Amino acid sequence: MTAGGIDRADPEAAIAEAARKYSNWGRWGEDDVRGTVNLIDGAARVRAAALVRRGAAFSLSMRFQNDGPQKGWRRRVNPVHTMTDTGTEAALGTQGFPHGFGGADDVIFMPLQCATQWDGLGHIFDHGRAWNGRDAARVVTSEGDRVTGIEHLAAPVTGRGVLLDVGRAVGEDGELPDGFAVTEEHLAATADAHGVTVGRGDIVCVRTGQLARVRRGEGWGDYAGGPAPGLSFTTAGWLHRTEIAAIATDTWGFEVRPNEFDGAFQPLHQVVIPHLGLLVGEMWDLDELAADCAADGVYEFLLTAAPLPVTGAVGAPVNPIALK
Amino acid sequence: MTAGGIDRADPEAAIAEAARKYSNWGRWGEDDVRGTVNLIDGAARVRAAALVRRGAAFSLSMRFQNDGPQKGWRRRVNPVHTMTDTGTEAALGTQGFPHGFGGADDVIFMPLQCATQWDGLGHIFDHGRAWNGRDAARVVTSEGDRVTGIEHLAAPVTGRGVLLDVGRAVGEDGELPDGFAVTEEHLAATADAHGVTVGRGDIVCVRTGQLARVRRGEGWGDYAGGPAPGLSFTTAGWLHRTEIAAIATDTWGFEVRPNEFDGAFQPLHQVVIPHLGLLVGEMWDLDELAADCAADGVYEFLLTAAPLPVTGAVGAPVNPIALK
Amino acid sequence: MTAGGIDRADPEAAIAEAARKYSNWGRWGEDDVRGTVNLIDGAARVRAAALVRRGAAFSLSMRFQNDGPQKGWRRRVNPVHTMTDTGTEAALGTQGFPHGFGGADDVIFMPLQCATQWDGLGHIFDHGRAWNGRDAARVVTSEGDRVTGIEHLAAPVTGRGVLLDVGRAVGEDGELPDGFAVTEEHLAATADAHGVTVGRGDIVCVRTGQLARVRRGEGWGDYAGGPAPGLSFTTAGWLHRTEIAAIATDTWGFEVRPNEFDGAFQPLHQVVIPHLGLLVGEMWDLDELAADCAADGVYEFLLTAAPLPVTGAVGAPVNPIALK
Amino acid sequence: MTAGGIDRADPEAAIAEAARKYSNWGRWGEDDVRGTVNLIDGAARVRAAALVRRGAAFSLSMRFQNDGPQKGWRRRVNPVHTMTDTGTEAALGTQGFPHGFGGADDVIFMPLQCATQWDGLGHIFDHGRAWNGRDAARVVTSEGDRVTGIEHLAAPVTGRGVLLDVGRAVGEDGELPDGFAVTEEHLAATADAHGVTVGRGDIVCVRTGQLARVRRGEGWGDYAGGPAPGLSFTTAGWLHRTEIAAIATDTWGFEVRPNEFDGAFQPLHQVVIPHLGLLVGEMWDLDELAADCAADGVYEFLLTAAPLPVTGAVGAPVNPIALK
Repeated sequence: MTAGGIDRADPEAAIAEAARKYSNWGRWGEDDVRGTVNLIDGAARVRAAALVRRGAAFSLSMRFQNDGPQKGWRRRVNPVHTMTDTGTEAALGTQGFPHGFGGADDVIFMPLQCATQWDGLGHIFDHGRAWNGRDAARVVTSEGDRVTGIEHLAAPVTGRGVLLDVGRAVGEDGELPDGFAVTEEHLAATADAHGVTVGRGDIVCVRTGQLARVRRGEGWGDYAGGPAPGLSFTTAGWLHRTEIAAIATDTWGFEVRPNEFDGAFQPLHQVVIPHLGLLVGEMWDLDELAADCAADGVYEFLLTAAPLPVTGAVGAPVNPIALK
Repeated sequence: MTAGGIDRADPEAAIAEAARKYSNWGRWGEDDVRGTVNLIDGAARVRAAALVRRGAAFSLSMRFQNDGPQKGWRRRVNPVHTMTDTGTEAALGTQGFPHGFGGADDVIFMPLQCATQWDGLGHIFDHGRAWNGRDAARVVTSEGDRVTGIEHLAAPVTGRGVLLDVGRAVGEDGELPDGFAVTEEHLAATADAHGVTVGRGDIVCVRTGQLARVRRGEGWGDYAGGPAPGLSFTTAGWLHRTEIAAIATDTWGFEVRPNEFDGAFQPLHQVVIPHLGLLVGEMWDLDELAADCAADGVYEFLLTAAPLPVTGAVGAPVNPIALK
Repeated sequence: MTAGGIDRADPEAAIAEAARKYSNWGRWGEDDVRGTVNLIDGAARVRAAALVRRGAAFSLSMRFQNDGPQKGWRRRVNPVHTMTDTGTEAALGTQGFPHGFGGADDVIFMPLQCATQWDGLGHIFDHGRAWNGRDAARVVTSEGDRVTGIEHLAAPVTGRGVLLDVGRAVGEDGELPDGFAVTEEHLAATADAHGVTVGRGDIVCVRTGQLARVRRGEGWGDYAGGPAPGLSFTTAGWLHRTEIAAIATDTWGFEVRPNEFDGAFQPLHQVVIPHLGLLVGEMWDLDELAADCAADGVYEFLLTAAPLPVTGAVGAPVNPIALK
Repeated sequence: MTAGGIDRADPEAAIAEAARKYSNWGRWGEDDVRGTVNLIDGAARVRAAALVRRGAAFSLSMRFQNDGPQKGWRRRVNPVHTMTDTGTEAALGTQGFPHGFGGADDVIFMPLQCATQWDGLGHIFDHGRAWNGRDAARVVTSEGDRVTGIEHLAAPVTGRGVLLDVGRAVGEDGELPDGFAVTEEHLAATADAHGVTVGRGDIVCVRTGQLARVRRGEGWGDYAGGPAPGLSFTTAGWLHRTEIAAIATDTWGFEVRPNEFDGAFQPLHQVVIPHLGLLVGEMWDLDELAADCAADGVYEFLLTAAPLPVTGAVGAPVNPIALK
């Protein structure tokens, strides 16, 4: 299937075909709760650790704060962080502690997909089916994801990270325009330009450059839910064939927006999460890492991207750390 | 200063003396926002990465969930995780999405110190002074920590981790009793038993075994705020002299409870956070890692413990990953 | 049906029989969203207003605060109220406002059933059926109650209030013991003792005295979800026949706990909310009002009990005001 | 002082002068926590109850929902209402309850000033002084308002309500334009047109018509914090002299915006809350009531406006009920 081959009028058929071709249902047993993260093994982690040469650490996370991309769509607001005790009162001595002790404490309210995050396996369904063919109605209820909650991924999401800076390799001035569909060919050309090969168990970070536009002074605008560069629906085969463990982008929605069908909503999600069991990351901040990679020409690293293990969560904040 | 030397009646004097002896104020410049995390350098991380031999990953985080240790003290409740969309509705087809697409989303409300966490440098004050001698009233306000917010530690908290399983080395059946004060001598004996040396830039994980008691069926009880084993006030010198970057325990409050003074509250915190600038972790779940270390005899590893970078936070949830 | 007539072993049959006998489905049209609140009319409100003789106002609401009855059951925690700005910073002048202006602001996180509340019509279902025979699956989803949300009751819940102080009339020292089932006979005896008649459109407040025990120094204990005095399952007919608009108690769960069946959960709820469409209030604080009624012998008043109109809510905090 | 007399360049002097002239400090004793609400007495409530002629009830509250006016300023977001149990699961039978019982529950996160609300006496300060001359730093801390929390107003805010529909009486097509300063003269002319007299203990509702613009299809726009009609700074004397108990408007900020000074922020608040102790309501929805008043020519009614009694709150949601 190529971009040219997409029938814009029939997303449902395209999704069904891709689902059939690229399904991983049953691949890791009927009780599986990890999906493609199973593709990371100890040997892969040992090889990844060997990539650490300078000991430089990069956080690939946005800040979690009131000033963020969210605009309230489906109740996704920005984090609200408030204090239950402050230094101001500690200095005044009104906290009631002895011997000059003072403390500050805080709480947060936030959607789990408010900023840098992993989509859990229970985040997206296809016709009522969740990852591994399960009945969505039984898996994700008001209690949360009772089967594939993000807590099952607390430990294993550490391995070889590869940055594909498609913005730099393919775009102009390091950025792809909104609506730009990143195809398999673009990914391959980028990997070639970087001198890296993407393979089994890798955590692939795709930089489009969209976040750089926000940062450069344009503000958040429609970053959350508006037009964006992103992966073409046609990359489903590549995502399956390469046997990567996870993919993350610097955009709100991972796939290109508007997408390549008429009247469709996040069709690539509908294939890769419930059918491939692929771990998808969004709103990752890849700019500092990308600048370093451009400077030293090294696009692979040890990546530790451990989700906050909220029991039953279908998504989770994450502060991914790349170590070079 | 030794345990025998503590004047139980005068915590304020003891705190003042320790603060004077072990202060790091100014050590990393007057604008410093990282404290002892400055002691981790690239070379340390390269050495730590070289410790990865099997590629085994361990999460040292509790689960973030309704069933947790908190009891409401100073408004610290357990996390409340709720869904804004579920698989149940996706299966029913009532979500309003096209082509069989369905989704689930969620939100969380939680104190930032509800479960496994790092104390930020703005978490504790001594007589109105915050880390590096700053005025607590100006540093941590209702807006959060405007100077030393946890976001400044987003990237660097990766280095060599060392587990000191004092519970196994010193306790009975792998556990220390509540109220047991872990002294410098206990730490040294444990390190000897493990065949490790603690040094500059290390992230030290001290296992007391208290969490194992909760897990073993006793329930949370007074885990949050009640009696517990923990570090003796007298370890302040050791914490300073060893030049470790951070320390974390499997207890609510890091230091021994009740503490070694009359009518005192968390006196060791009052020394090590504002004066040493030490990064302190609490409620870490070290049991699975400890079992592995006991089995293979290797108590050092690469540790990535990146806090969730909530802007202005004085504490942060963390899912620390040990890689052996 | 009498208390003697309850077959403890078969709550399902008893519920079905009561549902059949006392159903109000269709009574106010198939589109109805107000249930028994329809029984309050303008004339009833005019008569109620005429009861105001002294102009004394009583709040029948608990305080919404951290120190409350909730214990986390099904994620029902006590309210967490935090400040986003304080007077402390206003006094310090660090808020950034001109000409000496200072402000304080706050936020709250709370279950809608955390304290004094009305149960919405979408709060309880019988075999998947909601009020008026609707399919519960279509009425109350993750988006909230899309049909009978509490906002539909924003205006009308004002009318004649009647206090039935069963604690004083029937109990010892003004209180009923936990597990005491208040029957129709008890309600009638109480009304007789008070010299009031309960009738169409009334909002009936039943005081058991349980909250007084909490207040008197016993603490919250198991107030939320534990044993309590409350209405007998056998009052379903009375609740229907009297044509009252609403009923509220000073207990967590309105009906007696443990209830009068084996292995049953809130069986009276299952009849009166989905089948009668009855508005049920819980955790009302009736003690101050009751003392006043005992003093002046007047047990009727104007009652304004307007729920906080949260769109789609299945329950709502309320600060009911009795005016005598 | 008249509008013509305002020195635009010196808000601080104008505020100081008004504060001096109109202060109620000490009027109700040094321990007072109610401010002008003290002006409502039993006799006033009896007279107000006598105004109830038809028994028509009007809610003056907006809906509390995700789709609301807030835009995140100082962390004021719209309410986020989520479900912890739904009818969908009840219908599926996955909730674990016996005999066909099903339930739905919900939680909310919201700023206390997110929609229709009362400003508490601890909401605004003048040069570090709170109501009655208290030190703001000691009154409103991270713990909330420890002295004048809104819970002290749980019961008494019931009395005679008077609608002054300035939009209809003075504006065009029933609305005042943004930036229109409502003066004492406008208020008097409106009262005259309505045939009402404003006096001691009244709760005055001023309709500008701004909310009607939002409702009519213009959307929220800058309703929260943008330009708006509202009370002129020069009304401070009228607000004091009339001895009203409270005032509420259909706008975000009660006073005219932009205000009548250069570089000033909410100067009338700075006078009336800390100095008069005046209860101020904002974002009230007066349109339905106003239409009724225009139809029957009666602009006075019994008004019950009981704040949600959140302990220590500096503002509170309220569902005010007008009964005619």
